[in-house]
Amino acid sequence: MSEANINWLDLLAGKSEGQEPLYAQITRSIRDAIEAGELADNSRLPTNRELASILQIDRSTVSRAYAELSEAGLIDSHVGRGTFVRSSAKRISQAQRISQTSKNLSLDWSDKFSQASKILSDLIGRQPAAPNQDDIISFGGGIPIDEFYPHEKFQQIVAELTSSEQAKEMFGYSAAEGHPALRKEVRKHLAGHGIECGEGELLIVSGSQQGIDLVTNVLVNPGDAVLLEDPSYFWAICNFRAKQAKCLPVPLDNQGLRLDVLESLLTRHQPKLLYVMPSFQNPTGNAMTVTRRLQLLELAKRFRLPILEDNFVGDLTYEKEVLPPLKSLPGGKELVIHQGTFSKALCPGLRLGWLVAPPEVTFRLFLAKRSSDLSTNSIAQIILAKYLEEGLYGKHLDYVRLCYRRRRDTMVQALTKITRSLQFDGNPALTWSVPAGGLFIWAKLPSGLSSRDLLRFAEPEGVTFSPGDTFFLNADQCEYIRLCFIQTDEAAINKGMERLAIAMRRYFDSIKHVSASTHDAKTRAQQNVLI
Amino acid sequence: MSEANINWLDLLAGKSEGQEPLYAQITRSIRDAIEAGELADNSRLPTNRELASILQIDRSTVSRAYAELSEAGLIDSHVGRGTFVRSSAKRISQAQRISQTSKNLSLDWSDKFSQASKILSDLIGRQPAAPNQDDIISFGGGIPIDEFYPHEKFQQIVAELTSSEQAKEMFGYSAAEGHPALRKEVRKHLAGHGIECGEGELLIVSGSQQGIDLVTNVLVNPGDAVLLEDPSYFWAICNFRAKQAKCLPVPLDNQGLRLDVLESLLTRHQPKLLYVMPSFQNPTGNAMTVTRRLQLLELAKRFRLPILEDNFVGDLTYEKEVLPPLKSLPGGKELVIHQGTFSKALCPGLRLGWLVAPPEVTFRLFLAKRSSDLSTNSIAQIILAKYLEEGLYGKHLDYVRLCYRRRRDTMVQALTKITRSLQFDGNPALTWSVPAGGLFIWAKLPSGLSSRDLLRFAEPEGVTFSPGDTFFLNADQCEYIRLCFIQTDEAAINKGMERLAIAMRRYFDSIKHVSASTHDAKTRAQQNVLI
Repeated sequence: MSEANINWLDLLAGKSEGQEPLYAQITRSIRDAIEAGELADNSRLPTNRELASILQIDRSTVSRAYAELSEAGLIDSHVGRGTFVRSSAKRISQAQRISQTSKNLSLDWSDKFSQASKILSDLIGRQPAAPNQDDIISFGGGIPIDEFYPHEKFQQIVAELTSSEQAKEMFGYSAAEGHPALRKEVRKHLAGHGIECGEGELLIVSGSQQGIDLVTNVLVNPGDAVLLEDPSYFWAICNFRAKQAKCLPVPLDNQGLRLDVLESLLTRHQPKLLYVMPSFQNPTGNAMTVTRRLQLLELAKRFRLPILEDNFVGDLTYEKEVLPPLKSLPGGKELVIHQGTFSKALCPGLRLGWLVAPPEVTFRLFLAKRSSDLSTNSIAQIILAKYLEEGLYGKHLDYVRLCYRRRRDTMVQALTKITRSLQFDGNPALTWSVPAGGLFIWAKLPSGLSSRDLLRFAEPEGVTFSPGDTFFLNADQCEYIRLCFIQTDEAAINKGMERLAIAMRRYFDSIKHVSASTHDAKTRAQQNVLI
Repeated sequence: MSEANINWLDLLAGKSEGQEPLYAQITRSIRDAIEAGELADNSRLPTNRELASILQIDRSTVSRAYAELSEAGLIDSHVGRGTFVRSSAKRISQAQRISQTSKNLSLDWSDKFSQASKILSDLIGRQPAAPNQDDIISFGGGIPIDEFYPHEKFQQIVAELTSSEQAKEMFGYSAAEGHPALRKEVRKHLAGHGIECGEGELLIVSGSQQGIDLVTNVLVNPGDAVLLEDPSYFWAICNFRAKQAKCLPVPLDNQGLRLDVLESLLTRHQPKLLYVMPSFQNPTGNAMTVTRRLQLLELAKRFRLPILEDNFVGDLTYEKEVLPPLKSLPGGKELVIHQGTFSKALCPGLRLGWLVAPPEVTFRLFLAKRSSDLSTNSIAQIILAKYLEEGLYGKHLDYVRLCYRRRRDTMVQALTKITRSLQFDGNPALTWSVPAGGLFIWAKLPSGLSSRDLLRFAEPEGVTFSPGDTFFLNADQCEYIRLCFIQTDEAAINKGMERLAIAMRRYFDSIKHVSASTHDAKTRAQQNVLI
């Protein structure tokens, strides 16, 4: 974050256009400067008073211009700290200009967009843009890096395939329910997790996200209630919301889903679905205990509640305890649509996953799949089937578990170190639990602080993470940060956590300065330098 | 089609279950026999009178049983010709049983399905099941066969890739807008068709079907009007209908879309979209003339009508005339979302296509893609990009064009031969136009005849095709058949057409017998043998 390095008198010079009101000239000039990159993301604008004094105009004119820019989502004002260019302002402004231009043509597309598209656009527009710095260490996202993909083995398989009888299959349509060889291997894999899956109960899909999309298509009418863990997976929330489901939040405790809240919701609503990640939930890393799983199924049975179990990282366990999927437990066969993938434990680019559901539901999912993309790419299915046939997955899994566990432990140590040396108002700088598996550590700032504000300090230090409000159904929970520990090696984790510590210290200091200086103009000037 | 080869007394013997009414016993027994395969698809059941006489029961009891089975979609009665097991009866009955079973469990999924899923299930349930005979010659479907995929070259590319620097990219996430190398090649390809496509105007998708799905997601609210050619592509109709669009039909003439009808619809409705295949339309093979294309764009501009141009076989031209895509013509840049694929000209299993749209629309499509499946599989994109980079597509296209043209000509000759030797009531047995490109010949039976009835005669002869009513928005147009000429070699085309000629002759004869024998019991017996 930096002071906007710009000559404000120059900015407005020569820009007067006939009868255009002064506030509109200011709005337009600042917008131009944002699009031209002269006003960088996160840079600080002058205060109303300062800009009014520089331009020798009335403060209300500046206020009106700032209000318009804020309305357009280009700047953010924080009482006591100042006004800043939003991190995605350049992109937003450009998109608005395109929209404006198209309005002058004969067809105004913005009139044409569906409700679903508007909802999606609003949800995604609120997310921070990825910083485009070169040396940034990212604890954001949740994508395994290519260091762990079984490249050599895959390459060998591909090479063998191209000279085999199967080569011809690689470029033809696959059956919409999935390639038979992959289906066979997935069923074996599922059997290993206690899930007996009949031929008519399995559908191969193009990655977990398609699984969610198909389940929503098959079950959810606009206005239907859907239950989600709160917080939950961002793209699942987007998918449900875009289909105009009423998303009802179910909070978590350290055993998993809060069943008392769930039961109370079930007595008041008839939800179509509970979407849940029992093992190492995204974003919290929370693991539902076996007892809680059994209780959940009892409750679901009582209320005839269908469950979509997203087992996206079920295999990535770092402790001894085995967590059986809901689908494998009593009632699961009947109540649960189970979703799995190798994207996280193996590699994400194959875009393959699966759904296991009662036959009647599987048939509906199959039809939705046909209508959505006809069938999944053959070559990826054949490669994965071969890899599984050779029995290599288990060994690979042992290896990545070991590595990811080390990375988790490294991050935990670094977090412990931060909190030993850094406090805020006598509270620990961060609190968190150690996840027993998965990809994420979910950490909490002291009450009243904001992960988005911390991000403004973190990015200039060269470290980033996912702000936690992204994952809540109501975005007012702003103290959380999600840290992904699998996509950076141990050295980078340590370095990134040091940067985070610096950012936190600066963020905490800035707040203390603000509180100390509410009535002290001198200190406020100092604070501006600090920000 | 065969007489049901079954001992009807045995069928019902020992099946009495306490108080179950007699008609219900008959219904259940026939259902069991269908599921067990004892009553084969298309086999003929005894008449009411015959079965009543065999079982020594009242005819009204048989009537009631047959009415129940007909209601359940398991049998079809045709006045004067008899009662037949439907071609997909076994599958339907099994699905109904699953549904029945699940009703006895605590969760009845059938209560849970969305409106979209119900619509899709109804639409697809009406389609004939693919015959599972071994030696059938299929003119149904529209999938290029692997004989024409560039196997050797693909294999060589894959082999080279696995030992290159790019190997690592093959298994990672691709950017949601598509792999940069493929995007570059697609933009070059489009430029060759007169479409200048900016970086922000292109989205790689997982095949054309996903393109349609995303466009529907982004533009269509339930209840919105969408215009389609009538007849049109089956899976597009399914997609629009499942999203509860009001599908308005626009008929075709030999120049393309009927603009007089279109204009009249546009004055009465505000459709969100016109979905159109200007080049070698599915199912008709119709090619819109350049003049008609220009007029269509004029009209679209006047009514601010967005167009989705599906150019699925734009490259498969067999005559000299060049047909410019709508997107490349005046107004196209602004009004048209253009969709293309290499699935038909190259190979279908890569599941790759693209959308070209104004930047604002492309951004919305991009968001819908993220919500739908995050991104497209990397390996297929990289293989295709390499293939295109090497400049091999043009030569391959020349080759398949030549082969497909020959197949088209062979089918045309065979059709000519049929109509020379076969008439119905003095009318030619079939009429058709020769398509200048694409995959299909669209042929018409004499007025009043039914392609579904012909199919009953064709399948036992070992030949199949797509009945034309599948493609109409209102299924009452039953005289058409769609013949795909690209997926069988010339010898098989000739053999299949000979079989079709026999089937047509038998079908025509059966109708003549029926008309001749309306009041003649003896002839009816003879007709039963014939059927």
